[in-house]
Amino acid sequence: MFETSTQVRVRYAETDQMNVVYHGNYAQYFEVARAESIRSLGFTYKDMEASGIIMPIIELHCKYLRPAHYDDLLTVKTQLKELPADHRVEFHHEVYNESGKLLTIGKVVLYFLNAVTKEKATMPKELLDKIQPYFN
Amino acid sequence: MFETSTQVRVRYAETDQMNVVYHGNYAQYFEVARAESIRSLGFTYKDMEASGIIMPIIELHCKYLRPAHYDDLLTVKTQLKELPADHRVEFHHEVYNESGKLLTIGKVVLYFLNAVTKEKATMPKELLDKIQPYFN
Amino acid sequence: MFETSTQVRVRYAETDQMNVVYHGNYAQYFEVARAESIRSLGFTYKDMEASGIIMPIIELHCKYLRPAHYDDLLTVKTQLKELPADHRVEFHHEVYNESGKLLTIGKVVLYFLNAVTKEKATMPKELLDKIQPYFN
Amino acid sequence: MFETSTQVRVRYAETDQMNVVYHGNYAQYFEVARAESIRSLGFTYKDMEASGIIMPIIELHCKYLRPAHYDDLLTVKTQLKELPADHRVEFHHEVYNESGKLLTIGKVVLYFLNAVTKEKATMPKELLDKIQPYFN
Repeated sequence: MFETSTQVRVRYAETDQMNVVYHGNYAQYFEVARAESIRSLGFTYKDMEASGIIMPIIELHCKYLRPAHYDDLLTVKTQLKELPADHRVEFHHEVYNESGKLLTIGKVVLYFLNAVTKEKATMPKELLDKIQPYFN
Repeated sequence: MFETSTQVRVRYAETDQMNVVYHGNYAQYFEVARAESIRSLGFTYKDMEASGIIMPIIELHCKYLRPAHYDDLLTVKTQLKELPADHRVEFHHEVYNESGKLLTIGKVVLYFLNAVTKEKATMPKELLDKIQPYFN
Repeated sequence: MFETSTQVRVRYAETDQMNVVYHGNYAQYFEVARAESIRSLGFTYKDMEASGIIMPIIELHCKYLRPAHYDDLLTVKTQLKELPADHRVEFHHEVYNESGKLLTIGKVVLYFLNAVTKEKATMPKELLDKIQPYFN
Repeated sequence: MFETSTQVRVRYAETDQMNVVYHGNYAQYFEVARAESIRSLGFTYKDMEASGIIMPIIELHCKYLRPAHYDDLLTVKTQLKELPADHRVEFHHEVYNESGKLLTIGKVVLYFLNAVTKEKATMPKELLDKIQPYFN
């Protein structure tokens, strides 16, 4: 398993009049967490796009257990439980507040696609080489 | 069953550099669709909050089949398949483009909560009276 | 002068914990108003991009007089006071609530640029022909 | 003068189909920069709201010189050139990319208001005591 942890500070813009983070904004927190997860391997999602592979989101699932509030310093855990065998990759996320309470659980399914043809692709070899050791 | 249909025009701000609507923004389209769904009954979510009942989102599930693009005039269908029996209510959404293609499928679970105590509540009687006829 | 008026309903996502529309979101309301302004002439900004001209924003100025609230049906007035003589165009916006109160004043400066070379361009002839009659 | 510097990483969600950061999103970058500016003094905007003082935005002015791109690590400089003498405070912002190029210039005017009465207020003494030394 490959697991990383990233911190995100809640912006005022991300709150709504219920005094909590608007539920749709967690998609951005998960995005930040995935980007930092890949960066920790010495690769970036930006590099991947530059190399001709894009990763559109195919599914998003969120369970909101407790609200996040303005200025909270959230910890977003990211897990890749299985090495992707084909074009499909599944990330698991958990968002915690500073007291260690679990606030939100997320699952995001993405595809590797050829940026030009939009045909299914696989994880670029450069990233695969870096991530494979975590699954031995 | 109670079903309504609302139109949303894609904003430039809602696109990302993949030239499609950013996946997290569908949460807003679903929100607009639910608000208009309730408004069509002669009630508003704003009225509900004013009466002391809030509806936080508990779960969000999205499947992205095809992308939406800038300036698309989307049709968002909203279905309430069952009359809520307690504090839990489940909305189903489908997003179509102008060619009638199904782009996105959503399911959103909300709770009725007392705005002050945050205790579980039920659908306000004023709304229940308006929506019940659709389930006979 | 060319002047149009568009309506925008405030989304829950656009509010913040001060119970008002987050100030940064007016940029989107102005964008919607400009897009509808151009559409009213039988042309669209989407068409313009497809024809190879993009309009990046060069300046944004907002004055916030009164707050907008959730579910407000805002009227956004858009004025083009002068026909653009070169690559620069200036839009003026005013946002009103349902009571006719002026909430926000905006000015947005955009350039016409060649989408590929990023060189300065001018208003596409197709749009110019439609808008010129308003300045005679 | 009181000056601080904060870093913000551009999110995919913040880009638009012009492959740059959507102009309206700089309001959030400025917000983050102001919050971190205050935090550097050992106080937070969150504390201020908790103490009964809110700071709504009254004016926003942005000049966009060069675009920011996905995954750019931006440096946002924040300057308070004058100690606020009354309810009005003016922040100046500059956004730089990793090459040290100036991308965006911002000016944001805020008021100190009583959170309950919405009457004009002044900078809380706790913050004033911390910031005054920078203006001697």
